[in-house]
Amino acid sequence: MTAQCYLQEQFDRRGARIVLNGDHPWDIQVRDWPRMAAAFLRGTIGLGEAYMDGVWECDNLDELFYRLAGAPFPTLAGLGVQTAALMRMGRRRNAFRVGEAHYDLGNDIYAAMLDRRMTYSCAYWDNGARNLDQAQEDKLELIARKLDLRPNMRVLDIGSGWGSLAGYLAEKYRVTVTGLTVSKEQAAFANDRYAGAGVRTLVEDYRDHVPPVPYDRIVSVGMFEHVGVTAYRAFFQNAARILARDGLLLVHTIGNSRKRDRPDPWVAKYIFPNSAIPDPVDIASASRGLFRLKHAEDIGGRNYWRTLICWLNNFDAAYPSLDHNRYHERFRRMWRLYLGGAAGNMRAGLMDVWQFLYTKL
Amino acid sequence: MTAQCYLQEQFDRRGARIVLNGDHPWDIQVRDWPRMAAAFLRGTIGLGEAYMDGVWECDNLDELFYRLAGAPFPTLAGLGVQTAALMRMGRRRNAFRVGEAHYDLGNDIYAAMLDRRMTYSCAYWDNGARNLDQAQEDKLELIARKLDLRPNMRVLDIGSGWGSLAGYLAEKYRVTVTGLTVSKEQAAFANDRYAGAGVRTLVEDYRDHVPPVPYDRIVSVGMFEHVGVTAYRAFFQNAARILARDGLLLVHTIGNSRKRDRPDPWVAKYIFPNSAIPDPVDIASASRGLFRLKHAEDIGGRNYWRTLICWLNNFDAAYPSLDHNRYHERFRRMWRLYLGGAAGNMRAGLMDVWQFLYTKL
Repeated sequence: MTAQCYLQEQFDRRGARIVLNGDHPWDIQVRDWPRMAAAFLRGTIGLGEAYMDGVWECDNLDELFYRLAGAPFPTLAGLGVQTAALMRMGRRRNAFRVGEAHYDLGNDIYAAMLDRRMTYSCAYWDNGARNLDQAQEDKLELIARKLDLRPNMRVLDIGSGWGSLAGYLAEKYRVTVTGLTVSKEQAAFANDRYAGAGVRTLVEDYRDHVPPVPYDRIVSVGMFEHVGVTAYRAFFQNAARILARDGLLLVHTIGNSRKRDRPDPWVAKYIFPNSAIPDPVDIASASRGLFRLKHAEDIGGRNYWRTLICWLNNFDAAYPSLDHNRYHERFRRMWRLYLGGAAGNMRAGLMDVWQFLYTKL
Repeated sequence: MTAQCYLQEQFDRRGARIVLNGDHPWDIQVRDWPRMAAAFLRGTIGLGEAYMDGVWECDNLDELFYRLAGAPFPTLAGLGVQTAALMRMGRRRNAFRVGEAHYDLGNDIYAAMLDRRMTYSCAYWDNGARNLDQAQEDKLELIARKLDLRPNMRVLDIGSGWGSLAGYLAEKYRVTVTGLTVSKEQAAFANDRYAGAGVRTLVEDYRDHVPPVPYDRIVSVGMFEHVGVTAYRAFFQNAARILARDGLLLVHTIGNSRKRDRPDPWVAKYIFPNSAIPDPVDIASASRGLFRLKHAEDIGGRNYWRTLICWLNNFDAAYPSLDHNRYHERFRRMWRLYLGGAAGNMRAGLMDVWQFLYTKL
């Protein structure tokens, strides 16, 4: 049996609706069959690295991953590494690693890819937004309304990124916002952009943050994925410690209702070290006895799919003008695989995007 | 030490803000100190029975229970019974017991106590309703909107009571509704009242229900409290089995975010045999891999407090004209303690009232 026949059979057997070297834009075009076969045997990490190395091509990664959704590919190659990494995740000395590895890549790439506020989380298109800038503002407004803000309230934003939400809340709702991030690049950017706007951004682990008085509101958008299941309880305990009695806590996070999954080893190695898709049962366990769930909503699916497609298109358009010594061809392919793969997975409904609103018990 | 001093010290020590034989309408008026002391040693079941027997009085039970909220009274007397009952709860042959014990009491008492549709669950006052009839309609409308109904959809109502929601949905949204109840009295009432309205009510265990084609929507209001934790998984598996691919499932249930609690032994003995306040972690575990949580909301607190106060006032007003051979004085006191106690607990935030909306995975 040729490598092509063997591999096609492996894809077919898993229900993946693609043809190797077929005619559709979503079909995988294999450039090197022996290397492709070797990559396949290493599971998703092998296939991901093979794409980065040009062993295979695909014109429409989003559609490819949509068609692969649910096909059980072996991920054994990365399992040992992954399990050890998950055990380390909640530890303090690892909290800053994702900051350095992912968010400190360089603000230029995120400025090119994201909306004008640089909001690095799922946008909200359900209110009819026609472009990414509007969809991100609609998402910020959705969060602001849930937070039930009044002027001069003290708000903490755990994982504040480039200050998008903090800036929006301070400007539109006249609250004072403290942002916490583990990325020095993000903090420098936010402190520069929102100087004097009622926002200050600190490079600090959320567990070490001791405010002079409790916050009226705590919000965390797209950061819980980096907390680690061993530290979920500490996250909620800490939030309870520094939140006022009548305060509100809003947690916006990707989730997985399907099964308790280990992170994909390719994503863990190249995109998000020390990260995991939260499980709804783990979140419920960690918050119980501390917080009452007042409201929850899954805004995922097509909202995140459209967001990721925008990011991918923005990245493609900006790539020619980026510094190719820093963002070399292998990086470009890695980044496209990340965005296109995530888009396809979201469209296929493999993940959720929850906003949980809590009151203190 | 006198019995009075001993008991006052016991209440004070637990942080209960009441004075025995004090001047406030919420203070407990003890009529027989030796019997009160003996009742206290038997925990909540002893104190509850003592109230039924006239050992103590209280003008404002709602406020009393609000002030007792969180005071850890011993419930040991009932524990053995309770644990055994919890183990039996999920069993099929016990499913009809709560139907006979509680819901078959007689339709007359519920007709006197509830709104004109006879909706036996938390009403919704947050939209400005001024009376119970409107608040219950607002609750039914809240559920209907979440269910995203279109004419001729097939809807299953698990635990349909006297047909309130089923009738509302069929009349206003022109869907066909199948109701399931374990109470013969409820089924007879609903089939009479909604004959020809697109509603049929069956006396059937939800696990035995086999529809010819899957339902477009499944809704369950105030029934999950009777499912029992050992059968939560079966509840969701069964719902997944008989729900269409793009269907929606809405579960409306009382919940407890505070701690994994055994049911109060007095409530379990006199009011709701085979019932338990669901735990959010247990619900999340039972639905995982079957359903995606699209939306959740806690409508409890003051909404249920106001509802229970209406029920208590309606019951008080109707009692003189009820049949006192069936609803004797001890029943009257038992029923007032149930409604007043629940009102105080809800007002104190001891329980939640969730509406969970799920899509099928």
